Amino acid sequence: MTDPLQTGATIGILGGGQLGRMLSVAASRLGFKTCIYDPAGDCPASHVSNYHVKAAYEDEAALRAFSEAVDVITYEFENIPTSALDLLEAGTPIRPGRRVLAVSQDRLTEKAFLSEQGLGTAPFAAVDDEVDLAEAIEEIGTPAILKTRRFGYDGKGQARITSPDRAGAALETMAGAPAILEGQVDFTREVSVIAARGLDGSIACFDPGENIHRDGILHSTTVPAALSPAQRSDAVLASANILNALHYVGVMGVEIFVTPQGLLVNEIAPRVHNSGHWTQNGCLIDQFEQHIRAIAGWPLGDGSRHANVMMENLIGADLSRVPDLAGTNTAIHLYGKTAIKPGRKMGHINRITGPAS
Amino acid sequence: MTDPLQTGATIGILGGGQLGRMLSVAASRLGFKTCIYDPAGDCPASHVSNYHVKAAYEDEAALRAFSEAVDVITYEFENIPTSALDLLEAGTPIRPGRRVLAVSQDRLTEKAFLSEQGLGTAPFAAVDDEVDLAEAIEEIGTPAILKTRRFGYDGKGQARITSPDRAGAALETMAGAPAILEGQVDFTREVSVIAARGLDGSIACFDPGENIHRDGILHSTTVPAALSPAQRSDAVLASANILNALHYVGVMGVEIFVTPQGLLVNEIAPRVHNSGHWTQNGCLIDQFEQHIRAIAGWPLGDGSRHANVMMENLIGADLSRVPDLAGTNTAIHLYGKTAIKPGRKMGHINRITGPAS
Repeated sequence: MTDPLQTGATIGILGGGQLGRMLSVAASRLGFKTCIYDPAGDCPASHVSNYHVKAAYEDEAALRAFSEAVDVITYEFENIPTSALDLLEAGTPIRPGRRVLAVSQDRLTEKAFLSEQGLGTAPFAAVDDEVDLAEAIEEIGTPAILKTRRFGYDGKGQARITSPDRAGAALETMAGAPAILEGQVDFTREVSVIAARGLDGSIACFDPGENIHRDGILHSTTVPAALSPAQRSDAVLASANILNALHYVGVMGVEIFVTPQGLLVNEIAPRVHNSGHWTQNGCLIDQFEQHIRAIAGWPLGDGSRHANVMMENLIGADLSRVPDLAGTNTAIHLYGKTAIKPGRKMGHINRITGPAS
Repeated sequence: MTDPLQTGATIGILGGGQLGRMLSVAASRLGFKTCIYDPAGDCPASHVSNYHVKAAYEDEAALRAFSEAVDVITYEFENIPTSALDLLEAGTPIRPGRRVLAVSQDRLTEKAFLSEQGLGTAPFAAVDDEVDLAEAIEEIGTPAILKTRRFGYDGKGQARITSPDRAGAALETMAGAPAILEGQVDFTREVSVIAARGLDGSIACFDPGENIHRDGILHSTTVPAALSPAQRSDAVLASANILNALHYVGVMGVEIFVTPQGLLVNEIAPRVHNSGHWTQNGCLIDQFEQHIRAIAGWPLGDGSRHANVMMENLIGADLSRVPDLAGTNTAIHLYGKTAIKPGRKMGHINRITGPAS
């Protein structure tokens, strides 16, 4: 057991996007300084942090200096090169730890891990070549989704296979990368649990939120999700199992499909999660502060929900709706990105739809 | 009427203490960058801002560069040298404007202004010398409080006069500075209204909070304050009158004594205020974001209260109670100050005592 970090300690954050930005703000609330590691200048998190190491993930000298300057290291994205993690970990603890990264960086390893925990998942099979793919389609059927095992996000690195004769075209889009075929799940809804585990092993979960995606990107999350009490506790317990099995420290996003046959875990993200942004205006302690508390060795905070909330992402040109969105019952959260691109997450709003029900 | 500031614009903040820190965080939520002007290195606001101009308020070149680098200027304290304001204002708008500073930087001018608005105040008289003081005591009586007209805060620059024969000693502590004698008010409670006025003249007030001071420093603020409906609306209307009379833009703290004879305005602070910190966990939009919205020309946000809250300052060694304070219903806000000194504001907590009543 490690002592809790004291005021004035510095938290290192790998990745300087909006998640790093909001983590940095949460860290400041608890009196911590932050140091952002990101190759990009003027990245969103750098606007609200003490230090910004602007260097590549292959820059060993920069990584070493970063590691020496901070008291604990966390991250806002999971695809950090292993070589960088090795180097960083030699000097400073990384939380969440390496185990979850090994699991979640690879969709196949992740699905296998979830199955080992006795959790339901979509049917899946490894696909390295045409032969694998043909066998996988025979086993799983179509429609199915072919995904690269690594480095996919927001629908990138994915190809839908509606019938076996479309297999070749889908495989080509993988560009030779190791892949996984996942059976399409007919879910009635997708929910996510934002779960936290402290350094002392205690667990706290925010209420599950219900997600709507558009064009492969999260569009909205609504709390409360339309779940039965049994589904709600199943979702929370499944999430707690995952965190415990990994000796996880920090906040994790667990995406779950609700199907007539039960809950299936879609994927886990070892970090704060877009579908947890509603907590900023629905809870006393939000997901960002909960994550900082966990990795700092503090007791987890009170994440109970006091409001019904609908979080909606502001994508690309949605930004032009600001500030007229700024009316009653609505909180705006912008990421300080000035270049508007289609599909780019520019901010989000949290609309309070009533007291907690 | 000016267009609202767009994402990516930079807000300049004079003063880098905890108020500047929390203003900077609020600005980031709306996508703004911030630039802090403060002579002190490693000041609390610099931890969460893009830029920190570390220079004296007499440094004309630094002031000019600051003014050119930002789109609007605001401040976290009222005693900014007039020469600095003159120089800054030549290039960039200062909000709240100069008029309120002229009024609030001088206790005598402030009291006279409040009286002109038809608002009740403690009895007061200007004191420049022994003769003035003797006359003032005769008129106002004792107990009374002798205060420097300028540069006082947290009980500094004040001397209580319990009987006429203590007048000489009190006057000595003023060290020749122009002063004001204020009659002691027997108030049943002290409340404050955190009021905001937008660039379009619209006004929004947070619910009045009830303040307890210890050793001249704010100890706690509780919402709701124990006021009758009539007292509540009188307090809010008095505050709105003050903001309108000054063509004010931004958030102001209005301290009000509740007495058997009615409400008396104690003092106004042309900035976010310690007694408004409860809004961070009691409202969708807190005082810091409300201030940023106002000075950025945005519509004011929804500051309605969803919880009963008790805010308590963490002074000096109170910091050692963290993180064990981090339990149920309690949010912690620390300022990133590492040197603990008696009387120094190190942070505050907001304890949720129930849903809004």
